[in-house]
Amino acid sequence: MALAYDGAIQQLIDSFARLPGIGPKGAQRIAFYLLGADQQEAQELADAITTVKARVRFCEICGNVCESSPCSICSDPRRDHSTICVVEEPKDVMSIERTREFQGVYHVLGGAINPMSNIGPADLRIPSLLERLKTDEVKEIILALDPNIEGEATTTYLSRLLLPLELKVTRLASGLPVGSDLEYADEVTLGRALSGRRPA
Amino acid sequence: MALAYDGAIQQLIDSFARLPGIGPKGAQRIAFYLLGADQQEAQELADAITTVKARVRFCEICGNVCESSPCSICSDPRRDHSTICVVEEPKDVMSIERTREFQGVYHVLGGAINPMSNIGPADLRIPSLLERLKTDEVKEIILALDPNIEGEATTTYLSRLLLPLELKVTRLASGLPVGSDLEYADEVTLGRALSGRRPA
Repeated sequence: MALAYDGAIQQLIDSFARLPGIGPKGAQRIAFYLLGADQQEAQELADAITTVKARVRFCEICGNVCESSPCSICSDPRRDHSTICVVEEPKDVMSIERTREFQGVYHVLGGAINPMSNIGPADLRIPSLLERLKTDEVKEIILALDPNIEGEATTTYLSRLLLPLELKVTRLASGLPVGSDLEYADEVTLGRALSGRRPA
Repeated sequence: MALAYDGAIQQLIDSFARLPGIGPKGAQRIAFYLLGADQQEAQELADAITTVKARVRFCEICGNVCESSPCSICSDPRRDHSTICVVEEPKDVMSIERTREFQGVYHVLGGAINPMSNIGPADLRIPSLLERLKTDEVKEIILALDPNIEGEATTTYLSRLLLPLELKVTRLASGLPVGSDLEYADEVTLGRALSGRRPA
């Protein structure tokens, strides 16, 4: 009995099932969708994958993904190059850009300190951050790491490391998410919201 | 401000977000996963998409997807060609094959009757089914359509259509799913299980 699809279809299902967030059923659904889609749409997807791998590189200054290095943010003279926002991943740059609240530049670490996964400070783009502080006229460093154990550890590590440089080092506020409900906030978040209370 | 990623990345995210079951966040996650993946894995995915579109066709007999027509099931002399199982989609063939209970052959309709989406009997592979009944020595037709409104309507339509041919026409049993709980069964399913009760 045929318990797998004919070669090409099964190969496509397997390739999709390897991607994050796609299970075997989802991969099958996508494969049959592509089989039914017109040739152009399928080709566009295949080309987009090849193009990204060929064109996209990392900015030599901030480590963000870009098509030409330095990236569009680092090479923009209208941005405030004296404020550097330190984030874990390139996608965090986009999250902060979407707020339209930040006019400075970025530094992408490429992760956070995580002893369980054997990621120490040496595996992150920390030396290049220190290098930037030597040459650029930086006044403020904003530590915008994820509010989880790894992010907190990295924030603590970096704030200690930057202490002797006599810069303004800040971190994102912790507190209640906008639009949420006090009743459902966890104790740690509510505690942070209390200790970080501001004049109303 | 840069509110979209540089060209190639954004294009990849958009291409993935068009696929069924993938939202914008999932598409972003996959795009960054592929950026970080090695060249070979990304290329394999791109090639799998191109290959499927180039190679996969529909079996001229049963309408299932295959790489050479007739498909491996229709051209297998060990299968019982006197029993045809009628299903909606190619993926249903795989579901039935996985049970290892069926030795016959298939006929894929390419959907079900659905007046809301303007799909009538003429849009399905019903004429080719009738053609097969004329030439092949068919003894039994198993209607294995989805147990929803469209599937039921198609089952009723086909059973009436096939009545004059004096074939054995059967349908899949309705009842409680194995491993489920009586308490949580809906009334219609439980009613079907009762009316379809068998000697214990």
